[in-house]
Amino acid sequence: MRISIFRKGHFNSAHQLAVPSWSDEKNKEIFGKCANPNFHGHNYELVVKLTGDVDPETGMLINLKDLKELIKREIEDRFDHKNLNLDCPEFNRLIPTAENLCFVIWGILRKKLDQKLDLTVRLFETERNFVEYPAS
Amino acid sequence: MRISIFRKGHFNSAHQLAVPSWSDEKNKEIFGKCANPNFHGHNYELVVKLTGDVDPETGMLINLKDLKELIKREIEDRFDHKNLNLDCPEFNRLIPTAENLCFVIWGILRKKLDQKLDLTVRLFETERNFVEYPAS
Amino acid sequence: MRISIFRKGHFNSAHQLAVPSWSDEKNKEIFGKCANPNFHGHNYELVVKLTGDVDPETGMLINLKDLKELIKREIEDRFDHKNLNLDCPEFNRLIPTAENLCFVIWGILRKKLDQKLDLTVRLFETERNFVEYPAS
Amino acid sequence: MRISIFRKGHFNSAHQLAVPSWSDEKNKEIFGKCANPNFHGHNYELVVKLTGDVDPETGMLINLKDLKELIKREIEDRFDHKNLNLDCPEFNRLIPTAENLCFVIWGILRKKLDQKLDLTVRLFETERNFVEYPAS
Amino acid sequence: MRISIFRKGHFNSAHQLAVPSWSDEKNKEIFGKCANPNFHGHNYELVVKLTGDVDPETGMLINLKDLKELIKREIEDRFDHKNLNLDCPEFNRLIPTAENLCFVIWGILRKKLDQKLDLTVRLFETERNFVEYPAS
Amino acid sequence: MRISIFRKGHFNSAHQLAVPSWSDEKNKEIFGKCANPNFHGHNYELVVKLTGDVDPETGMLINLKDLKELIKREIEDRFDHKNLNLDCPEFNRLIPTAENLCFVIWGILRKKLDQKLDLTVRLFETERNFVEYPAS
Repeated sequence: MRISIFRKGHFNSAHQLAVPSWSDEKNKEIFGKCANPNFHGHNYELVVKLTGDVDPETGMLINLKDLKELIKREIEDRFDHKNLNLDCPEFNRLIPTAENLCFVIWGILRKKLDQKLDLTVRLFETERNFVEYPAS
Repeated sequence: MRISIFRKGHFNSAHQLAVPSWSDEKNKEIFGKCANPNFHGHNYELVVKLTGDVDPETGMLINLKDLKELIKREIEDRFDHKNLNLDCPEFNRLIPTAENLCFVIWGILRKKLDQKLDLTVRLFETERNFVEYPAS
Repeated sequence: MRISIFRKGHFNSAHQLAVPSWSDEKNKEIFGKCANPNFHGHNYELVVKLTGDVDPETGMLINLKDLKELIKREIEDRFDHKNLNLDCPEFNRLIPTAENLCFVIWGILRKKLDQKLDLTVRLFETERNFVEYPAS
Repeated sequence: MRISIFRKGHFNSAHQLAVPSWSDEKNKEIFGKCANPNFHGHNYELVVKLTGDVDPETGMLINLKDLKELIKREIEDRFDHKNLNLDCPEFNRLIPTAENLCFVIWGILRKKLDQKLDLTVRLFETERNFVEYPAS
Repeated sequence: MRISIFRKGHFNSAHQLAVPSWSDEKNKEIFGKCANPNFHGHNYELVVKLTGDVDPETGMLINLKDLKELIKREIEDRFDHKNLNLDCPEFNRLIPTAENLCFVIWGILRKKLDQKLDLTVRLFETERNFVEYPAS
Repeated sequence: MRISIFRKGHFNSAHQLAVPSWSDEKNKEIFGKCANPNFHGHNYELVVKLTGDVDPETGMLINLKDLKELIKREIEDRFDHKNLNLDCPEFNRLIPTAENLCFVIWGILRKKLDQKLDLTVRLFETERNFVEYPAS
């Protein structure tokens, strides 16, 4: 009787993709327009997936009010209207690619959720580019 | 050569979330606005996923005309423009949460489909809240 | 330099469509499944459109934070997770069709907005059915 | 026989909303999180609407290949993966609100299009916030 | 008290864009890939907009069941899974551009609707290309 | 640290579904309107999913610029504005059902991608019908 529940969130952030030890030329070659040192930005869409057993009394896997609040407090308030490179210590030494941002979000939520629940995070950078961790 | 095919359906229903043996206060505390005794409602979106082997002659896993008709007859006609609590015997003793509604839909379709086909049901209660059974 | 700004909102409600003075048969004939006396429901999507002149200093027509808060306080809190027929005095004598709900929302917002701003309300009952008032 | 044709485009940019002559406190009070001096960003969606008469021989109002190319060259290449405040001279003295960005895009396209065609630009900053110029 | 109501429809068709009296080279130059003599195709999305006065007794502008049925019978059944050039006499002498298809649909529906209702048709050829007649 | 990355593509094509050795009557019985010998068409949407390990230096699983270019060159340029039955040798002996088109796309991309990356292809024939290979 294991089921998965999904809840969406969103935040709008600026970022730059570049390896600090590389030259501007190499960063531009590898990261293209994403290497712009003045930053660009995205409307990130997040899908949090939790898997576990439904409580037979309430018919719920998790209270969606609590999950919505958790996503707001831990993810949206942290990253919304921020510069991921400059404002967010999570990216002091980590390039804020969609892949790394997805890892970081997974790590933050994993610590706050009951260990009985499996967690997967899907992150949309644009409607056409997205990532998911862990891979299924 | 196993492939999955997906077909969407939709229905609009009213429901209330409450444990009958609980007080109104406790139901409101746990289910929040969803406990409104006068009901609220949703545009439910359904994604039926079937997995199996493609017929080499027709190049089809299942005839989509038949799947569309099955979803209409067994799910849409049953739940569309209904009150899940009052009109649908499936919820006489079951709270119509998204989780339980997903189980019920899975059970109805499972009996009508060839056992060679694996079945997964994803149910959207809103664009931001959805569930999937069985969990992958 | 007149511009229009749009802001979306949403709420989930139950309703029934029926003329109280008509027989059940006539209501069923005219309103079809929408006449179900036990109610059904929808995820309503709302688009509020305001038209006026941009403030040359701020570059804004209206502060979107204020508009978002107005829609939440006046519309979403009023109709979300409610039964339009039973819980909302606006529909004591008015059938909660999409058309009438759109008029009601327009009337509520019109009183709260600066008269220099023109107001149009678009209301989606489903993705495929929607209305707009006033007509353009 | 006047018809309208619409073509979508998109670009991803960073920006900050602040009046340079105001204090940080006043900018934060008016623009909220959008005043973050380190910038944030958006996936902008653009809808260009042209109105005019259809060529009776080709059945076209305008060649969509040309319109797509114009939007790419004049708008997407100019603003995509840019910081609107720092990289784009259009905003040297203009705050890059959605309203002002919509005016700027309209002005750029207006100069490049046949005067026989009426032009309207709709710009989505997020899925829930958008503007249109000129107002209809 | 004039309001607009919208109803969506859809159909999937093949077509080719070419002026019969032109050379293949000129057709390819003007219509690009759309001139492929073996046809290509689209999932067309249709939005029918009607404007008029709401019936004060029913709260409806038009019965949506009737409008849905009209769109199915007159438009979807006529064009769905058809080759617009070969199967549809409407395009014997007319190139099936989005513009012309929109005119044709408008003309078909106009004859079937009460003259008290104003009619506008929006037709999506793809998510990024669409037309509307008459122009507003 | 295995992650999945997704990239969307799209193409517009015509096709017909029919078994050559069957009678017209049998093809119409099994394939319905899809058997129209004059073809119909679709806006196909494609989601390419790659799974593997992220490069710790760049924070990327694969360079999205390269993946976007690969999808354009190998899939979109091959199938866009084509008749799958007449123009595409892949379907000389294969019926272009969604299932078979998904297999074909998977086979084309599989040869061009690093063997360390797992590949899944999801193909939308319409918004309501789609397939995925391999099945998860």
